[in-house]
Amino acid sequence: MKDLAGYQSDHEIIADKMRVVPFFRNCDDDAIKRLSENAVKHQYNKGKLLFVHEDTASRYYLICSGWVKTFRETLDGTQAVMDILNAGHVVGETAIFNDDLYSFSAELVENAEVISFPLSDLQNEVETNPKLAMDMLKALAQRNIKQDREMEHLAIQNAPQRIGCFILRLVYNQEQEGPINVHLPYDKTLIAARLGMQPETFSRALGKLKKETGLEVKGATVSLDSIQQLSCYSCAMCSSEFPCHDLKKMQES
Amino acid sequence: MKDLAGYQSDHEIIADKMRVVPFFRNCDDDAIKRLSENAVKHQYNKGKLLFVHEDTASRYYLICSGWVKTFRETLDGTQAVMDILNAGHVVGETAIFNDDLYSFSAELVENAEVISFPLSDLQNEVETNPKLAMDMLKALAQRNIKQDREMEHLAIQNAPQRIGCFILRLVYNQEQEGPINVHLPYDKTLIAARLGMQPETFSRALGKLKKETGLEVKGATVSLDSIQQLSCYSCAMCSSEFPCHDLKKMQES
Repeated sequence: MKDLAGYQSDHEIIADKMRVVPFFRNCDDDAIKRLSENAVKHQYNKGKLLFVHEDTASRYYLICSGWVKTFRETLDGTQAVMDILNAGHVVGETAIFNDDLYSFSAELVENAEVISFPLSDLQNEVETNPKLAMDMLKALAQRNIKQDREMEHLAIQNAPQRIGCFILRLVYNQEQEGPINVHLPYDKTLIAARLGMQPETFSRALGKLKKETGLEVKGATVSLDSIQQLSCYSCAMCSSEFPCHDLKKMQES
Repeated sequence: MKDLAGYQSDHEIIADKMRVVPFFRNCDDDAIKRLSENAVKHQYNKGKLLFVHEDTASRYYLICSGWVKTFRETLDGTQAVMDILNAGHVVGETAIFNDDLYSFSAELVENAEVISFPLSDLQNEVETNPKLAMDMLKALAQRNIKQDREMEHLAIQNAPQRIGCFILRLVYNQEQEGPINVHLPYDKTLIAARLGMQPETFSRALGKLKKETGLEVKGATVSLDSIQQLSCYSCAMCSSEFPCHDLKKMQES
């Protein structure tokens, strides 16, 4: 909705951004209003910690631009990266199902715009809105399936196959015949961390992947003669065939 | 409830077993009745497949005795084990949030008693029972946290530390001072698969763990001088300290 001058109010902008989130997609205007009445827009710099693992949680965050890393860290500072998330993703909302404690940390890996919401408003809404509860159940179940896939890959794929799978997920929506160019979404050190590899392992594995599939990398651009060449190589050691069932489901829920 | 002769009916036995499941724990008698009216008790032999990954799902299963392996498999038969579950665990129920498709396979690794229920009864109940929906949300969120922990361990712990963590989880409920004896719940090949290791890797890693912590293994019995010795070694490369927060949560939800 726009006023006579064609401007959207902050509340309308926030409501529009919320409707991109799969589990808010079926919320009616009243529910969106209740959920967003205490929302706050933030512009943060790279390196900003949104929240810290095991801290008491009061707010959750909708990413509007930029990339956010979720991770866990040992006492000596060794990090395990859980995910790298972009616009349309929500972080920290599951604290309402975990005694109001965050189960990981979240940090901006580039300057980003986020909207924060009180967890208490979400909790009230989920408890009284069966449609939202069902949609959150679907979203959590899909996250479980995604994690199962990643555990499967860590157990049975080699490092080049895991990089191949990462690239296949980037080209999922592209035309599937003929040569393809794709832009890596963030830097290679971060891709390595996201795939649970040391940077040296990642470099060696990328070299092997190039040799096996004819794939080329120039800066942040990956070129492929055909998707099939890459999917034959990576998906041979996966329980799903390309294009995967879970990619479609993840986009819907 | 028992009749005059002291016998429980099948329905009462089933209701009792359901109340052990965290997300059924708050269901009232009427809800348990609706959920269990089409329940069937089964006695299956080792090797029985309860369901297969990506098959259309119609029933879910409550394990009453024995162990059930959940896994995914590539076309050439290479398996990735997701979990090994025992009495009180439910498998296959999340298919209602995945277009009625199972997202992994489930197989009995020893003779077992299970109860099966129609997914349609669960779906109807979740859609109309906010308490059950909230409890399932909590259970799914805890499963997510458990998977995050396992991904973290695969990324930053070495193999001996991961075996150490597996053993620490077995002794979690025991007295935490002095020497400890603990029985491995299933055979070592299965423990290796559960931890995403080849049997040879598991043997070597167990050898190293013994050397580092003074732990001893005779058959299926593990002896420890103290829990601290093991937790110092394993939990050094973990984002949580022993006893872990998530162990307590997993038992509640």
